[in-house]
Amino acid sequence: MSAKIKIPVTTVSRLSLYLRVFSQIETSGSETVSSRELAEFSGINPAQVRKDLAYFGQFGRRGVGYAVVDLKKQIRSILGLDRDWNAVIIGTGRLGQALMMYPGFGAYSFRMVAAFDNDPDKIGWELEGVPIFEMGEFGRIAREKRVEIAILAVPASVAQEVANQVVAAKVPAILNFAPAYLSVPKSTLLRNVDFASELEALTYFLQKT
Amino acid sequence: MSAKIKIPVTTVSRLSLYLRVFSQIETSGSETVSSRELAEFSGINPAQVRKDLAYFGQFGRRGVGYAVVDLKKQIRSILGLDRDWNAVIIGTGRLGQALMMYPGFGAYSFRMVAAFDNDPDKIGWELEGVPIFEMGEFGRIAREKRVEIAILAVPASVAQEVANQVVAAKVPAILNFAPAYLSVPKSTLLRNVDFASELEALTYFLQKT
Repeated sequence: MSAKIKIPVTTVSRLSLYLRVFSQIETSGSETVSSRELAEFSGINPAQVRKDLAYFGQFGRRGVGYAVVDLKKQIRSILGLDRDWNAVIIGTGRLGQALMMYPGFGAYSFRMVAAFDNDPDKIGWELEGVPIFEMGEFGRIAREKRVEIAILAVPASVAQEVANQVVAAKVPAILNFAPAYLSVPKSTLLRNVDFASELEALTYFLQKT
Repeated sequence: MSAKIKIPVTTVSRLSLYLRVFSQIETSGSETVSSRELAEFSGINPAQVRKDLAYFGQFGRRGVGYAVVDLKKQIRSILGLDRDWNAVIIGTGRLGQALMMYPGFGAYSFRMVAAFDNDPDKIGWELEGVPIFEMGEFGRIAREKRVEIAILAVPASVAQEVANQVVAAKVPAILNFAPAYLSVPKSTLLRNVDFASELEALTYFLQKT
């Protein structure tokens, strides 16, 4: 099965969550999952789960459910996780260090090929076995190591400047952890993880309870 | 103006982003912002920005724009940021440490009142001036310090167990950084920050470019 199923973009965000549920199900020793279980574990409503799973209908068997290993493989393929992606972390402070150690990255097809920092005391050393380079070398390293994703863990004050260097080096995707709005050309994929925004969404609802 | 404006939930997620843009605009020395500028800086389409800003119409003046300080105050009030929230971090590994140092938290109404860990070598010490307690004391500390938000920075394998303790202590909200699906009662607010999911959303689009 080399042709990839086409699915709506809104489904994509739920697929990652399903993958996480599968890992938990596998840990528990079960080899199949029903749509009802998947709904329960993912917190997504059952009708939506069944609709999403309809894209993988060939794996489901009435009364038996879906073979976790097959469903997982299919979803990983759709998400582009059936190959490795070369990623770098820019900024090796505590957040950068935490991200480098994050178990999810190693488990999910992301290969950390380099780290970058501006601190002369760090350059030339390694973080979790990954060499730390100075930011001035970004273009060369990005080319040599064919970097596809740059993870920004730098202070907000320098985030745009760093993003500009990433764009100039033609790295196609940025995952930004700095609490700053970044301006990048449309050709660069950008996703922002903003801890404060997540907390603010909580407080909005908290004040109503 | 004590009565709070009612806005759709879908607008809430954009308000945090607008706040971040205002901070950047203030840094640049400007006191007003037009809907066009806000659209440009936030990356949200202008029609949507104007619709969102219509909730705060009284602050806008044709040809002048919105007074940043007023708009900011209004949005902070809507998001529940016009008061402090007592938060704790559970798990003081590198991620917990990074979160404790995250500049966004201090700036945005979150008061870290305690940290928790299971490592006897850490208990009794401080992290960024915040005392570290053993998890067995969670219930007592949550009550005494009136904890409203628990930030989970623990390994996935213990995340559900820790969430159960948070729920039992009647802490109303959880921000979960562990790559695990958590089951909590409907009365507990839960938001998940899943780094791997963010990366997977990038790879889905990357493989199409």
